[in-house]
Amino acid sequence: MPKQTKVAILGATGFTGEKLVEILLSHPGVEVTYLSSRTEAPVAYSKFFPRFLNKTSLKCETLNIEKCCKLADVIFLSLPHTVSMGFVPHLLGKKKRVIDLSADYRFKDTNLYKKYYKVAHKDSENLPKAVYGLPELFKKDIEKSSLIANPGCYPTSIILALFPLVKEGLIEKKIIIDSKSAITGAGRKAVMEYHYSNISNNLWAYKPFIHQHIPEVSEVLKLSTGVTISPQFTPHVIGVEAGIYSTIYVTFTKSVNEEKINNIYSKYYKDCRFVRLLSGLPKLKDVVGTNFCDIGFALDEKKENAVIASSIDNLIKGAAGQAVQNMNLMLGLDEAAGLL
Amino acid sequence: MPKQTKVAILGATGFTGEKLVEILLSHPGVEVTYLSSRTEAPVAYSKFFPRFLNKTSLKCETLNIEKCCKLADVIFLSLPHTVSMGFVPHLLGKKKRVIDLSADYRFKDTNLYKKYYKVAHKDSENLPKAVYGLPELFKKDIEKSSLIANPGCYPTSIILALFPLVKEGLIEKKIIIDSKSAITGAGRKAVMEYHYSNISNNLWAYKPFIHQHIPEVSEVLKLSTGVTISPQFTPHVIGVEAGIYSTIYVTFTKSVNEEKINNIYSKYYKDCRFVRLLSGLPKLKDVVGTNFCDIGFALDEKKENAVIASSIDNLIKGAAGQAVQNMNLMLGLDEAAGLL
Amino acid sequence: MPKQTKVAILGATGFTGEKLVEILLSHPGVEVTYLSSRTEAPVAYSKFFPRFLNKTSLKCETLNIEKCCKLADVIFLSLPHTVSMGFVPHLLGKKKRVIDLSADYRFKDTNLYKKYYKVAHKDSENLPKAVYGLPELFKKDIEKSSLIANPGCYPTSIILALFPLVKEGLIEKKIIIDSKSAITGAGRKAVMEYHYSNISNNLWAYKPFIHQHIPEVSEVLKLSTGVTISPQFTPHVIGVEAGIYSTIYVTFTKSVNEEKINNIYSKYYKDCRFVRLLSGLPKLKDVVGTNFCDIGFALDEKKENAVIASSIDNLIKGAAGQAVQNMNLMLGLDEAAGLL
Amino acid sequence: MPKQTKVAILGATGFTGEKLVEILLSHPGVEVTYLSSRTEAPVAYSKFFPRFLNKTSLKCETLNIEKCCKLADVIFLSLPHTVSMGFVPHLLGKKKRVIDLSADYRFKDTNLYKKYYKVAHKDSENLPKAVYGLPELFKKDIEKSSLIANPGCYPTSIILALFPLVKEGLIEKKIIIDSKSAITGAGRKAVMEYHYSNISNNLWAYKPFIHQHIPEVSEVLKLSTGVTISPQFTPHVIGVEAGIYSTIYVTFTKSVNEEKINNIYSKYYKDCRFVRLLSGLPKLKDVVGTNFCDIGFALDEKKENAVIASSIDNLIKGAAGQAVQNMNLMLGLDEAAGLL
Repeated sequence: MPKQTKVAILGATGFTGEKLVEILLSHPGVEVTYLSSRTEAPVAYSKFFPRFLNKTSLKCETLNIEKCCKLADVIFLSLPHTVSMGFVPHLLGKKKRVIDLSADYRFKDTNLYKKYYKVAHKDSENLPKAVYGLPELFKKDIEKSSLIANPGCYPTSIILALFPLVKEGLIEKKIIIDSKSAITGAGRKAVMEYHYSNISNNLWAYKPFIHQHIPEVSEVLKLSTGVTISPQFTPHVIGVEAGIYSTIYVTFTKSVNEEKINNIYSKYYKDCRFVRLLSGLPKLKDVVGTNFCDIGFALDEKKENAVIASSIDNLIKGAAGQAVQNMNLMLGLDEAAGLL
Repeated sequence: MPKQTKVAILGATGFTGEKLVEILLSHPGVEVTYLSSRTEAPVAYSKFFPRFLNKTSLKCETLNIEKCCKLADVIFLSLPHTVSMGFVPHLLGKKKRVIDLSADYRFKDTNLYKKYYKVAHKDSENLPKAVYGLPELFKKDIEKSSLIANPGCYPTSIILALFPLVKEGLIEKKIIIDSKSAITGAGRKAVMEYHYSNISNNLWAYKPFIHQHIPEVSEVLKLSTGVTISPQFTPHVIGVEAGIYSTIYVTFTKSVNEEKINNIYSKYYKDCRFVRLLSGLPKLKDVVGTNFCDIGFALDEKKENAVIASSIDNLIKGAAGQAVQNMNLMLGLDEAAGLL
Repeated sequence: MPKQTKVAILGATGFTGEKLVEILLSHPGVEVTYLSSRTEAPVAYSKFFPRFLNKTSLKCETLNIEKCCKLADVIFLSLPHTVSMGFVPHLLGKKKRVIDLSADYRFKDTNLYKKYYKVAHKDSENLPKAVYGLPELFKKDIEKSSLIANPGCYPTSIILALFPLVKEGLIEKKIIIDSKSAITGAGRKAVMEYHYSNISNNLWAYKPFIHQHIPEVSEVLKLSTGVTISPQFTPHVIGVEAGIYSTIYVTFTKSVNEEKINNIYSKYYKDCRFVRLLSGLPKLKDVVGTNFCDIGFALDEKKENAVIASSIDNLIKGAAGQAVQNMNLMLGLDEAAGLL
Repeated sequence: MPKQTKVAILGATGFTGEKLVEILLSHPGVEVTYLSSRTEAPVAYSKFFPRFLNKTSLKCETLNIEKCCKLADVIFLSLPHTVSMGFVPHLLGKKKRVIDLSADYRFKDTNLYKKYYKVAHKDSENLPKAVYGLPELFKKDIEKSSLIANPGCYPTSIILALFPLVKEGLIEKKIIIDSKSAITGAGRKAVMEYHYSNISNNLWAYKPFIHQHIPEVSEVLKLSTGVTISPQFTPHVIGVEAGIYSTIYVTFTKSVNEEKINNIYSKYYKDCRFVRLLSGLPKLKDVVGTNFCDIGFALDEKKENAVIASSIDNLIKGAAGQAVQNMNLMLGLDEAAGLL
């Protein structure tokens, strides 16, 4: 691998694409060489986003897949769900490393994919090779992979909080998750629902029981722990610029105490740079602008139930930052390069 | 009762006191005649709050209880917890009608009061006379009462959502409540934690399992339904100017469907002006600035579990508005006078 | 005039239309009988805006001008600029009272109208009858008028601050105005520029020197004072939910002091319920949610220059509230009815 | 100079101190070795600010000046005005390089200092050696200096916008500046005025004509251009988390056009990494989180007047970022090290 790996970002004008550009431009080990956007003619990237003036002179253009392959060795796909899988076979055929931020390669079960994303999966050849890009669980696999399915934002905050407890068989299967997210999770869309006047000072629950991120959580926890759980999940939109805060309600199957829970989290995460185990409950703003996932918990008096709270920046650890963390592992770089 | 009842507000410079002044100044059936504040010399109320200029020329002064009794017949106590009960005996002795917005008369059980508010209750004589001021449950009692314990903000949003289901024996006792509140619920305090830079774009859970509003919910539900429940409660601070949004997770004990749940809510609330039963889940902003409580719910596929969401303006239906609603009932006025 | 005048709002789903509905539903002297919206089929108004549930059962429908005239005697036009003038002749022909919140009847000079709104004026017959609906300047005319040109939001904040000083010949013609406004002034539009993520924590200047509201200010000040001024005007978008704050820089032509300036403002506004002259500079939030215009000023050491700051709620005193104030005057009601 | 210069931050728990820690921890050429705070016992810095967990294990302690001098070679003073000058003589005596973020060494004229900061200057020996740390104007001097007076936040945004035009004698002396700033500029203070509920959705002008930053602007422009100007300055508080936006009104003394103005700005800033000359007016958010100063302007039709808008992040280019930029120059590092 050359000193400065060349990277491309397809879908560079969405929220996650923009955040990828920001992180990768400051990354010490890579060079951004190609940016594409579905809807726009070749134009200076800083024309879309003036905050990139004096930081990059790159242009963003309509996707030319051949040009992209000529210019870059690692390709980030910040494309809409169902679109990514149209490009992956070609890119892998060209021996590129691909990090897909869409949902296209997150499910091993194509029936689930079809149920939640409404189209049949069309790349069953590469799907088995895809590694779910949650480094805290699948580091070894990520290091050897050429195709990363970058996790959903809610699942990142949820799986990191639940995995050690599920793995240790410590909690009952009835789990309730109440998540709160910035609206950027919904993508860059010009609709009245996301108008300033409708988001500021507002909050609402949506898609209770049926959000597509819950089967993702269940499948990943099943694969990583062997245990089948299907939490009740209610996401909420909140009026913040960035961040997800998941409040998770669990009941223990065994006798526990604070120390025991702390030890279990430490057991799984002690070498994980981006998971911070707190002594109290997290505050959202402490992770905003970072790749950290903060986890804290509280037990009830009888030590039978816990509230676990987990927070991330939805566009960083929940998307672009985690994608770069994955890239670092794939390239044998310091896992935290460009992320601290 | 004369046409224009005279009312006083003690503690008029706190957030709830200020909101009371605002509502009562526009109220068609009362006249505000006396305002006091613990810490301030007699000074134009609009000096504290310039937004009241041209709306009132009232002064606010250090409490003079005799003067207050001379000038007003209904007394609102927006005083700190543990302070109200020092004044209530005197006011009732003077045949005043008292609406106490503190927690002092909310618990019938003085042990609970002591446990959660850290002082012994010192007015056991009047405590039994106090009516919990949730008009949707206790209208008849409120109409005849001289002492109202105005409910806590979280309990208002929670009890209204749960009461019909508990009353009908429809849900299991394990209930999880995830509430989100504006910081004004914590009172007007000059601390760094409430500084703009710490609230804007932030969110955090606090006091899990131990918040003083949960025994209040339990006691009121026990009194009104005969059923003992003790929900798990996790309040959160969110960066909004006003409002509480409670997301409540319940499991049914019987077979239900959407229609049945709707019918049950209608049975109890069809004549309640300020409860709105929605067909979907509420959005916080629709109740901000109003005395409404919006309630919506969603069932899972198997109709075994529900998410119920309930939202109020924490300073209106959660405090000052509800206090005025109580006053209206006590005075035989239209329940909604001054509140629409 | 009957006790409850019947009123209609055309364009009831825009920001100003919605605010009009809100104010008029609580107004003690009128009944809202008809709501139309350009783009929607007949549907409960609370379907658009759930916050109106339990407050009105009115439906909103595609405009039927005959039906409107049958149902209402006062017609508010919250229609886009250039659209209002298509309906006014018919409405006046039916002897209706019309309050137009668009710019269509604000300019007496049709060349200015054409220059700034890009279409030729097509109702030169009624234009001369239109009264500029700034009650603090034109009360007598408004009382007798059937056609009100409701002022622009920026002009309201600016003219009220400048009128007394210009009228008294106290300031030089070079005036600089730096205004800050909520984005709702731009209307309800689903564009990325108004997306939460672009407004929150942001601020920018736009349309320097060329904003259409400055010729409006100039023409109205010319008509009311005889003096021709053309201020330099720079509006800014700020991340607030409501409000305009105009900071105005003037130089005196004569020797003045604080008292003299105060006296001059008092001279013109002492009977104006909705103008509040402050002893210091205003804070925006003190007028949000109200029909007040707060005005304050500061002089430099030599008493040669002043900063005048003027603030309003852009949708209330800057639009819907002022429209209702005008209606009150036209109907002989208390000027403040429904507005305090 | 060793590869990793050791740096200390005195006053590390204020807003600018915290931002300094954040920037310096990621800086490739320095190591943070000492943190002090006026009011606190030795405690992990991440205890104050949990967002620094996993980023630093540094402790913050009550200032021990000897220990500080032993541990660090570059000392940043984020101390209150009038406090810094108590430490500077000692630090310079120890051959330390000092960057003072207070106002103590900004004025060459000690009468001005006394007038605006209410105490007599007590370090007249070192005052003449202090260099005003605005790299775009005084780069050469900064490189050779041991004592930097880091500029005020407003002055940074204002001087950068005005300097080229004043230097070229292009504008009249009557200049009007309308600035808008985040509340963090006022320092970390627990007062009700900075409570979330008073800042969110609010805006107000303060200290018109008399703000201490204007004599700073005047003195620096006089020193750098020989021209004496004293602009009228009105700062405003706005409800944003970070940023200053200065809207500046000037009148030209000569015939100009857009191209000419652009050329003049380019002449002075073409090699300045952190000044970005825009083709339109800036938006505040494009500089938030960066060390950039964005400058744009618009001319009136007659090319006689201009609006110039200049924006910075008040805690970065307006304080901590600029301090690091100065340090980079003093140490012979890349001017942008740690800042992009």
